[in-house]
Formats: sequence, structure tokens, C-alpha cells
Amino acid sequence: MMIKPLKDRVLIKPKELEEKTEGGIYVPDSAREDKLQEGEIVAVGESSEITLKQGDRVLFEDVDCTEMKVNGERHVIMNVKDILAKIE
Amino acid sequence: MMIKPLKDRVLIKPKELEEKTEGGIYVPDSAREDKLQEGEIVAVGESSEITLKQGDRVLFEDVDCTEMKVNGERHVIMNVKDILAKIE
Amino acid sequence: MMIKPLKDRVLIKPKELEEKTEGGIYVPDSAREDKLQEGEIVAVGESSEITLKQGDRVLFEDVDCTEMKVNGERHVIMNVKDILAKIE
Amino acid sequence: MMIKPLKDRVLIKPKELEEKTEGGIYVPDSAREDKLQEGEIVAVGESSEITLKQGDRVLFEDVDCTEMKVNGERHVIMNVKDILAKIE
Amino acid sequence: MMIKPLKDRVLIKPKELEEKTEGGIYVPDSAREDKLQEGEIVAVGESSEITLKQGDRVLFEDVDCTEMKVNGERHVIMNVKDILAKIE
Amino acid sequence: MMIKPLKDRVLIKPKELEEKTEGGIYVPDSAREDKLQEGEIVAVGESSEITLKQGDRVLFEDVDCTEMKVNGERHVIMNVKDILAKIE
Amino acid sequence: MMIKPLKDRVLIKPKELEEKTEGGIYVPDSAREDKLQEGEIVAVGESSEITLKQGDRVLFEDVDCTEMKVNGERHVIMNVKDILAKIE
Repeated sequence: MMIKPLKDRVLIKPKELEEKTEGGIYVPDSAREDKLQEGEIVAVGESSEITLKQGDRVLFEDVDCTEMKVNGERHVIMNVKDILAKIE
Repeated sequence: MMIKPLKDRVLIKPKELEEKTEGGIYVPDSAREDKLQEGEIVAVGESSEITLKQGDRVLFEDVDCTEMKVNGERHVIMNVKDILAKIE
Repeated sequence: MMIKPLKDRVLIKPKELEEKTEGGIYVPDSAREDKLQEGEIVAVGESSEITLKQGDRVLFEDVDCTEMKVNGERHVIMNVKDILAKIE
Repeated sequence: MMIKPLKDRVLIKPKELEEKTEGGIYVPDSAREDKLQEGEIVAVGESSEITLKQGDRVLFEDVDCTEMKVNGERHVIMNVKDILAKIE
Repeated sequence: MMIKPLKDRVLIKPKELEEKTEGGIYVPDSAREDKLQEGEIVAVGESSEITLKQGDRVLFEDVDCTEMKVNGERHVIMNVKDILAKIE
Repeated sequence: MMIKPLKDRVLIKPKELEEKTEGGIYVPDSAREDKLQEGEIVAVGESSEITLKQGDRVLFEDVDCTEMKVNGERHVIMNVKDILAKIE
Repeated sequence: MMIKPLKDRVLIKPKELEEKTEGGIYVPDSAREDKLQEGEIVAVGESSEITLKQGDRVLFEDVDCTEMKVNGERHVIMNVKDILAKIE
């Protein structure tokens, strides 16, 4: 049983907050940065606009995305055009 | 006697809230997630944009959709572009 | 003497509220559903976008439509793109 | 000396309110219908979008149109796309 | 030394209010009509959208136009698409 | 060291207010006209939409432009489509 | 480990405020100018719209950009169309 995003959407599993300080990439330290999140692509829609694939690590803002729980874990679904960057 | 959605619209029978905890897919636990709903496609419009078919299970937000009762049961009609994901 | 809608518009004679409970199709039971209405197409504009014809029964929302009386009876005129579904 | 509407615009001479009850077509009876008006096309712009001609009787809403007096009589100028219907 | 409007813009010298009652074309008599103005085209931009020429008399609304003084006289500059009609 | 505007933007050195009364072109005399400014083009972006060149004198509104100091002097950077007219 | 901006976005390392007075290019002196910032391009997205490259110095407004820390240093990510100018 799986979630298949439609059209330009992707399903993302966000990193938990405690993990964020580990890699040194991103440490939020103000209210302004709080909306930024890191996550991993879990599934992608069928649109040819999507160049990301399962397993890619991405940065996105906690805006315009829809939260859901899949098997008890927090996920978000959002339009790929709103993803800011890939972490390589 | 049936409801035939026009153009890009689909008719959906939402799952009742008590059913949502059964499958393990989705358990809403905050106000923010409350707008997310699961449902089953009952009828689709004539638009070629629609790749969903009768019986598909979908996730959608309780926004911009119109509620109606068909033979006493709650249904919603909405544009297919606003459906977030298919459950497979 | 008749009303000829222009371009994408259609003229609809809405069903009176007391009639709505008869067919079993639609029974409004909350404020949210109150804006939904059933009606019959009386006349259509010249646009090729219009696939509905005189006599079709339709569901629409009581928003963005203009009310008028034709020979003493309430009618609405609206853009065909805002009609949600056809009742067959 | 005449007013020549530009592009998609038409010049309309609205019927006075007391005339509206005569023909039986339209009797406003609520605040909501008050914005509906009947009028006669006096002049049309050069756009090929305009299928109406001088002398046509039309229904329009008293919104987004500009009022002016021509030789002491009230007229309105508006975009033809905002005209709801022709009365035939 | 002259003002050359850019793109779709035209430069207009509005008629003074006292002149408006002379020709019989337009007598403003309510707050609503106050925004309507008559003027003469003084210069036009290079856009092929502009079919008006210097000397044409036009009607326009006192909205979205920019006022300036040229050699001490009030002028307005505006987009030609917002000019309502030509007076012939 | 110079500022190179990107795409459709131009860099303008506005005339100081005390200079505005000299040439007789433009004397602001109301709050409404205060937003109008005269300036000289200092640099232009690479867009083919730009028909203005360095040294051209232009009129623009003090809206949607960004102010900056270059070597201690006030400049503004703005989109060329928002420039109203050229002074010749 | 690096941040790869997606589509039309670029990653910028803004100059610290104390550095801004050094080069003589830009000295903010009013609230209005405070939103202007100088920075250096660190990484660019894959869009062919982007003519800037790593190392370019740019001016941008502190609006519509997202702040993040990379290895403890403040960066912003933004759409290239919102960058005002290049400093050469």
C-alpha cells in the first residue's frame, strides 16, 4: 500500500528537528529560518517537470505543503516547483 | 439517476472519519492535518486531463470542493487538479 | 420574446427549495451545502465550449451567477464553466 | 458629434427603471437583482469580438461600466464581454 | 523640448471642467461620473496597438493615469487600452 | 566598478527636486504629482525590450523602483516597462 | 556536501553589513534602502534563464528570498529573476 503523488507533486519524509544539527548543513537560528526544512523524496508524480527521484535529499519551505501521516510517520506532499534545492 | 461531473471535475465519496484509522495509511493528529481527506472516485468528467477512474482511492484537501448528498450519503465534487495523490 | 445568453453563458431555471427533497438526489443539511442548487437549462450561448443543451438538469453553486425574473419566475444566468455536474 | 467606443467596448442607453415593469421580462424585487439592467446598444467598438449591433437590446450588470451623459441622457460604456444576454 | 510616451502610452491634455458643459456631450452630475474626463491626444507611444493620433478627442477615467505639468499646463499620461471612447 | 542592471531593468540617476523647476517641463504642485520623477539613464540591462540608452532623460513614478547609493549619489533601479516617457 | 539550487534559483552568500561601506558602491542611509543587499553567487540552478555564474557579485532585495545557514554561514536562496543587478 503506497501513496502515489499526482501530476507535479512529490511526497517527502522530512528530517526530524533533532537531526538537523548533525550534518552541519543547516542550523536554524531565527524565526525567519524556521520555515526551512530538509527531507527525503519518497515518491514522485508522473509529470516530466520532475527531475528529482526517490532518495534525493531536498530543502523546502514549510508553506503550501500538505502534511499527512503514512504508517505513523510524518510526511508532506507538495508541488516540485516549490522545492528550493537538492543537497548533494 | 446519476451525477455526471462536467469538464475537469470528479465526484468523490469521502471515507468517514472512523474508517481512517483502520488502514494505517493516515491518522490525523493535529488541526493542520484535519483538512486532509481520503475518498473513492465515483464519477469523472469528460476532460482528457483526468487519468483517474471510478474506484480509485485518492487523498485530497477539504478546500475548494463542493459538498452534496447523493441518496443520503455525503459526496464532494472537485477539480481533478486539486487531488493530491492516489493510494495504491 | 426570449433571453439569449451571450458567449459562454447559460440561462437556468433553478428548482424551488421544496422540490429538492423529492428526487432523493440532493438534500441540503448544513450551511455549507446551502449554496448548492439544482436547475434546468433554459437557453445557451453561442460558444462551442457549451456541451449542455436546453432541458438538461444541472448542479451549480449560488455564486457568481446573476439572478433575474423572466415572466415573473426566478432564473439565473452564469458561465457554463461554473456548472459542477449534469444530473442524468 | 458622436461617441465612438474603442476596442471591445460598447455604448449602451439603459432603460429607465419605470420602463422595466412594462414588458414582463424583468421585474427586480430584491437587493440582489438591483444591479441587473436592460439597455439598447447605441454604438460599438472596432473589435471583431463584438457580435452585437446598434439597436440590440441587452441585459448587463451595473458593475465595471462607466456612466456618462450624452446630450443630457444617461448612457454607460462597458466591455462587451461583460454583457450577459441579448433580448430577442 | 517634448514628452514622448513610451510603448502603449499616450499623453493627453484634459479639458478643464468649465469647458465640459459647452459642447453638450457630457455633463457630470453625480459623484460616480466625476471620474470621467474628456481630453485631447498630444503625443502617442511607438506601439502598433495605438490607433489614435495627435488631436483626437477622447473620453477616459481619472484612474491609473499619471498627472504631470508640461510648461505649466496639466497633462495626463496613460495606457491607450484604458481610453474608453473617441469623440467624433 | 559599475552597476550592470539585469534583464529588463535600467539604472537611473534621478534629478534633484530643486532642479525640477528649472527646465519648465515639470513642476509638481500637488500630492498626487509628487510620485512623478525625472531622471537620466545611467545603465541598461541586456533585454531587447529596452529601446532607451545611456544619457536618455525619462519620466517615471517613484513606485516599484529600488533606491541605492552609487559613490554616494542616489540612484534607482527599475523595470523599463514602468518608465512613462522620454523627454526629447 | 553542497546545496544545488533547483530550476531558476541561485544560492547567494550575502556580504555582512560592516563590509558594505568599504567599496563605496553602496551605503544604505534610510529605512527604504535597508532591504537592498549585496552578495556573491555560490551556486546556480539548471535553468537556461540563468546568465550569472559562481563568483558574480550581485545586488538584490531582502524580499522573497529564503535564508539558511550552510556550515554556519548565512546564505540566501532566491529566484534569479529577482536579482536586480550585477556589480562589475
